[in-house]
Amino acid sequence: MDIAAQRIERAQHLMAQQGIIGLMIMTRDDYRYFFGELRVQPRAIIPVVGPPILIAFAAEEPELRQAAGDLPLIVFTDVAEQMTGVRHAFRALVEGGLPPGFSTPPDGRMRVGMQLWFNTPAFLVELFRKLNRDLEIVSSDPVMDPLRMVKEPAELALMRQAQEIAALGMDRARQLIAPGVTGHEIATEALYTMMKAGAEGTSTPIHVNVGVRSCWIHGTAGRQPVARGDLVVVDLTPQVEGYCANLARTFVVGPPTELQSRLLQTYRDMRETVREILRPGVKVMELDAAGKRICQAAGFGDYHIDGIAHGIGLRFEETPAPTIIKGHRREPLQEGMTMALGHTVLAVPGVGGVRMEDVYRVTAGGGEILVPYPTDQWVVRHG
Amino acid sequence: MDIAAQRIERAQHLMAQQGIIGLMIMTRDDYRYFFGELRVQPRAIIPVVGPPILIAFAAEEPELRQAAGDLPLIVFTDVAEQMTGVRHAFRALVEGGLPPGFSTPPDGRMRVGMQLWFNTPAFLVELFRKLNRDLEIVSSDPVMDPLRMVKEPAELALMRQAQEIAALGMDRARQLIAPGVTGHEIATEALYTMMKAGAEGTSTPIHVNVGVRSCWIHGTAGRQPVARGDLVVVDLTPQVEGYCANLARTFVVGPPTELQSRLLQTYRDMRETVREILRPGVKVMELDAAGKRICQAAGFGDYHIDGIAHGIGLRFEETPAPTIIKGHRREPLQEGMTMALGHTVLAVPGVGGVRMEDVYRVTAGGGEILVPYPTDQWVVRHG
Repeated sequence: MDIAAQRIERAQHLMAQQGIIGLMIMTRDDYRYFFGELRVQPRAIIPVVGPPILIAFAAEEPELRQAAGDLPLIVFTDVAEQMTGVRHAFRALVEGGLPPGFSTPPDGRMRVGMQLWFNTPAFLVELFRKLNRDLEIVSSDPVMDPLRMVKEPAELALMRQAQEIAALGMDRARQLIAPGVTGHEIATEALYTMMKAGAEGTSTPIHVNVGVRSCWIHGTAGRQPVARGDLVVVDLTPQVEGYCANLARTFVVGPPTELQSRLLQTYRDMRETVREILRPGVKVMELDAAGKRICQAAGFGDYHIDGIAHGIGLRFEETPAPTIIKGHRREPLQEGMTMALGHTVLAVPGVGGVRMEDVYRVTAGGGEILVPYPTDQWVVRHG
Repeated sequence: MDIAAQRIERAQHLMAQQGIIGLMIMTRDDYRYFFGELRVQPRAIIPVVGPPILIAFAAEEPELRQAAGDLPLIVFTDVAEQMTGVRHAFRALVEGGLPPGFSTPPDGRMRVGMQLWFNTPAFLVELFRKLNRDLEIVSSDPVMDPLRMVKEPAELALMRQAQEIAALGMDRARQLIAPGVTGHEIATEALYTMMKAGAEGTSTPIHVNVGVRSCWIHGTAGRQPVARGDLVVVDLTPQVEGYCANLARTFVVGPPTELQSRLLQTYRDMRETVREILRPGVKVMELDAAGKRICQAAGFGDYHIDGIAHGIGLRFEETPAPTIIKGHRREPLQEGMTMALGHTVLAVPGVGGVRMEDVYRVTAGGGEILVPYPTDQWVVRHG
């Protein structure tokens, strides 16, 4: 394990300012960020002062002790024991004294920061609340976002690697799309290609949305076969060392209809317009506004849905993620943020939809694509 | 979509008894159970009276309207809209009048049931709480468990199918284990085999825990190569139509040491002893007690950890799951429950651990395995 001492120090500084006595880490991404290791259902505490506390299953103790040196450990054999250990650790923290400069909340109620997004299990938060009635649970975003939003060079390198793997998966998917092939078959082969190329898995299930399901926001890789004339949205999210890629393309099986061509062309134009303003200081809502104008000019104004871009990194969607957290619409971009651009679906409901998504780095000259991939090869063979 | 009217009626009956005005469905398994369809991040409400309410992304509306007939729909374009729609629906429900026989909670505070396990996102529960301060969130287990714990024949058939696919994956993994091969490579090939055989994916990441990591409770499929003498725990969890399999085996690369042989043999004995008492009326804690006696007799008493079995079905772990919810230790088994047996790790910390897991149906004659798979072929080639 590779403990990121500087990141922990920066987090502790922000925690003291915000009156947070500790971060309760319960997700793979935060654990990877601080400890350099991927774990399923990891647990740790970053206290506002002192060394981090690792929380381990009993049989893993010797290995973890060796890796973590003299860091404090909480050892458990079940969830109840785990959460009791956590309660004692937070109590000791409050009783042991807080650091100079700690900004005690006005109501005197001590705060614990947690990641409140998709991957934190609700029942652990509920259990924590029940066992720690004197503590207030707050979002850890104000601590984690300043650390994680702008990517370091080593992080960018892993994201590029993941994005290159996504490109291999998309090549494979494109090869296979044809009448009679199912979404499940395409997903199976694309995933195999990506894992052989080094992805540990994907951050979301692979989406191969066929026909009318090209309108879906979330994906599926169903058993219904592709038919001539279908739109097929392929959305790939491989991960390397926990870092996420996002590559989506929409294909047409055979010669596109006039409507399909216009949808695809409009989406491409919208993306390019937004890419140009992916610059520091621009607010997320301005990205959607610019995209909307392109859709309106193309006669698709009624079908435009906000949400063209979101942050990406160790989590599939991270700040800013305006379709998840409304306030992020007013978030200004910063140089060095990584954004997935092409997230929203442009769909004629009941007919079909398109999506093309890549990852960009925010720069003064506009979005800089991590790994270029063709945006104009949407027609695939049709038997 | 295939709306399970009888299941909904049974749920509504239990909700009325328990003073619950509606279930807020936010997980794949509950959605599949009521609506016969697999969706990523699905949302729906089962009110205590009246038809279920589906919640759909705007562009999916026409397709869903066609599939769902005249069921009420809430349409959203982002999370904020989704949760506002939900708030209005619950308000309308309270104002519209509750059914005769509804058991209003003593404090008059209306209850909403939610699945509070690993897959419900904490931030949605927090957002719901913030928007519905007049409603109390309670676990939906007392409604869902009586419905889901005992499996119907059609459910068992899908679980058998999933378990057969797991067996194919295990065959493939066993073929590949050899010095120099990595956990990641084994996981890649096993997953590909299982998806080609029809699994839509797995319910947990594939575990290929090598060497000292055979002690881990959760898995990993790392990049470190297998070495001669290693224990390798392979844990496979393919899903078919959302139904989960669970098959784990531990292999030894080359001739086992005396300790490795004893660990493997003890685990096998423990399982067989517990299998015999997997009968209606036996409490989950009695299973662990019986397992512990076997470990003690073999001189491994100090290393025994509770948690030999847990429920399995549309969720990887469901009631009874004693390592997650302590109270389940006192839960008596029922005829027709499906239990994954062989969940705990028997490990000499820092040295190595073993696990062998299969799925059984609880019957008066003891656990009936869904799909037999060899338990004594643990030595693999060693170069």
